[in-house]
Amino acid sequence: MGIVVQKYGGSSLADADAIKRVARRIVDIKKAGHDVVVAVSAMGDTTDDLLDLANGVSPLPPAREMDMLLTAGERISMALVAMAISDLGFTARSFTGSQAGVITDSVHGKAKIIDVTPGRITQAIGEGHIVIVAGFQGVSADTKEITTLGRGGTDTTAVALAAALEADVCEIYTDVDGVFTADPRIVPSARKLDQVSYEEMLELAACGAKILHLRCVEYGRRYGIPIHVRSSFSQLEGTWVVSDPGSRAPEEETMEQPIIAGVAHDRSEAKITVVGVPDKVGEAARIFEALADAQINLDMIVQNISAAATSLTDISFTLPRTDGQNAMTALARIQAEVGYDKLLYDDKIGKVSLIGAGMRSHPGITSKFFGALASAGVNIGMISTSEIRISVIVDENAVDDAVRATHTAFDLDADEVEAVVYGGTGR
Amino acid sequence: MGIVVQKYGGSSLADADAIKRVARRIVDIKKAGHDVVVAVSAMGDTTDDLLDLANGVSPLPPAREMDMLLTAGERISMALVAMAISDLGFTARSFTGSQAGVITDSVHGKAKIIDVTPGRITQAIGEGHIVIVAGFQGVSADTKEITTLGRGGTDTTAVALAAALEADVCEIYTDVDGVFTADPRIVPSARKLDQVSYEEMLELAACGAKILHLRCVEYGRRYGIPIHVRSSFSQLEGTWVVSDPGSRAPEEETMEQPIIAGVAHDRSEAKITVVGVPDKVGEAARIFEALADAQINLDMIVQNISAAATSLTDISFTLPRTDGQNAMTALARIQAEVGYDKLLYDDKIGKVSLIGAGMRSHPGITSKFFGALASAGVNIGMISTSEIRISVIVDENAVDDAVRATHTAFDLDADEVEAVVYGGTGR
Repeated sequence: MGIVVQKYGGSSLADADAIKRVARRIVDIKKAGHDVVVAVSAMGDTTDDLLDLANGVSPLPPAREMDMLLTAGERISMALVAMAISDLGFTARSFTGSQAGVITDSVHGKAKIIDVTPGRITQAIGEGHIVIVAGFQGVSADTKEITTLGRGGTDTTAVALAAALEADVCEIYTDVDGVFTADPRIVPSARKLDQVSYEEMLELAACGAKILHLRCVEYGRRYGIPIHVRSSFSQLEGTWVVSDPGSRAPEEETMEQPIIAGVAHDRSEAKITVVGVPDKVGEAARIFEALADAQINLDMIVQNISAAATSLTDISFTLPRTDGQNAMTALARIQAEVGYDKLLYDDKIGKVSLIGAGMRSHPGITSKFFGALASAGVNIGMISTSEIRISVIVDENAVDDAVRATHTAFDLDADEVEAVVYGGTGR
Repeated sequence: MGIVVQKYGGSSLADADAIKRVARRIVDIKKAGHDVVVAVSAMGDTTDDLLDLANGVSPLPPAREMDMLLTAGERISMALVAMAISDLGFTARSFTGSQAGVITDSVHGKAKIIDVTPGRITQAIGEGHIVIVAGFQGVSADTKEITTLGRGGTDTTAVALAAALEADVCEIYTDVDGVFTADPRIVPSARKLDQVSYEEMLELAACGAKILHLRCVEYGRRYGIPIHVRSSFSQLEGTWVVSDPGSRAPEEETMEQPIIAGVAHDRSEAKITVVGVPDKVGEAARIFEALADAQINLDMIVQNISAAATSLTDISFTLPRTDGQNAMTALARIQAEVGYDKLLYDDKIGKVSLIGAGMRSHPGITSKFFGALASAGVNIGMISTSEIRISVIVDENAVDDAVRATHTAFDLDADEVEAVVYGGTGR
């Protein structure tokens, strides 16, 4: 029997009873003959409580000390999970990110894992212990400082451990039953996906499905770690994120890989339009240089074809709403230099994305998608595509209709509505 | 200007305002040209809250995981203090016990410091930073496990750092103005001591004065670190714990070292009497062997002279009340073997101790002490002495009278009553 890596998030560790339930799940896997390594997040609202404390003493706390503070959260939860396991008659050893050998770069608050050296973990496994690791944290390679991976980073910790330990599977426990064809709060007939490819999951995560941390999926793909997303509140099979979905289907089904994995939506973006940019070489570059200097991540970019009569063009792009103010300031600063006419800001938009690896070989997906939107009376503002994704920007109020119409048009609706909670807290 | 080491306890770090006030004190020292290294305890009730969490998941949590859990408390407070300092325009670096090089043995829950390797601290000082260190914790030399030093251990962390860094002084900030000649809650006329010797402070701490951790004083004595016990709520000079009290007196006073440092009391002990022990070689040894096997620390021991007629003797000893049940069980188990008659248990006792280095050269202290107790109508149950201490066990209800009578008899009363709070929380 090989190594099973599990991840439990804060909502699965909300209180003593929740921790005891998690401990029983962990022990069950150990009893089944597996070695178990568990990455845990901070309990329930601990991280928010710590942020409140920080804001109480300083409006702008240094990032190094913020990481030192926040990492206390996982330290508490991992020790409690280890205690609960011990209370069930098994032995557990908890390790901080640093002790577990999670080596990162030195960017406080959003460090990237660059290596995992799990010597202490493998030793503890060899001694028969269940291993609990603090998620979300590591230690920088050069300065030996404590770092954090950013919100949701415990998913990444788990997959990185699974890769380093050559685990059979990385189980991500959450408060929903798996990955769905759409958000069931919007589409009650959404179906749980039994399997989804890394590529599709990456697009889903990037397009607003909050179920898995983007870097976690990237890590899983790079090292070929099967990720099993499932609920900590039931024993149901969840969704397997794998490289080749068809290969894991139950034999009797011999199912083909479906064309469409799902419909994702995102209400966290805003749109900025730079109106009347002189249609000369270098002008667009100057605009995006200014935005890059302001550390702003852009999503979709559209440049309208220049009207020959005016030799002026409009450039639109989307970005996280939280970066909106910074972007507007950065652009206003270069108005004279670039010579554009004005800036338009719109945060009443939503993005709807259709994602499926089958798009590659099935023409006609785009026209079917746009036809469904038209029938639902949804106006398309911007369009962007990748090999396995089509995204459109629509009015914020049209998002639900757009998702539902698309879901139905691609025959994704389940025959029966499953009782699911998607993105909620607890069940 | 040299290095100043400071220690702030939980009551000095109770909330955001308290942390900001501590940060201002620290920055003041830095502004005065000193390098500052600060050991901090967990905020206010954090440790109790963490203990409650542990008890919620397991009635008997493993000591290793308990240490992992509790050390989160100082991690939180040190990061917050560093943030508050940063908010005042100075830079601070916080370090865990492990990062600070606090090397201990591997006894979880009550580890002893065996070395301090403060490489990262001296580097941070060299870079101009104020250094904040998590008190109460370290890392074991052999197993690299996180350990804690036991309650009050942050005092010891501070003095150990002061020794390793060859600091000029170790300032222990607390919620009282210093060390007093007696507990001012019992003796309102008690005086603050300007200075006290390590030996006297050790006896005071061992005899119930809770103001300094015993191991902290031992450490200070061994390395000759002057310890300044003072209030974090005022700018008053506190009490200096030094090797040669006279030498630090203001020059104009040229005071002689006082004969008596103070009167301490302790209501945490119980007395057990083993009645009718056969007066043979080896019987007493068997009794104390059984108690040692049960990990019980004894304080005073008295063996009554055997009455020749019966050749039986009574053995009495005192011990922490919390060990009472264990001790009675251990002794009951050897009754047949030893052949004693019965056990008596009394936890309605108190210990009153008179402490002063001057006792060595001043005969008559004992008779004066006992005379004062007799005049106050206090009956003496047991007596024990060291070179600089006389302790008596009295009835629990007689402790206050005994302390007051002794304090007056040795002319320790102040002319005026100072407004002090002793052992309270906050002021």
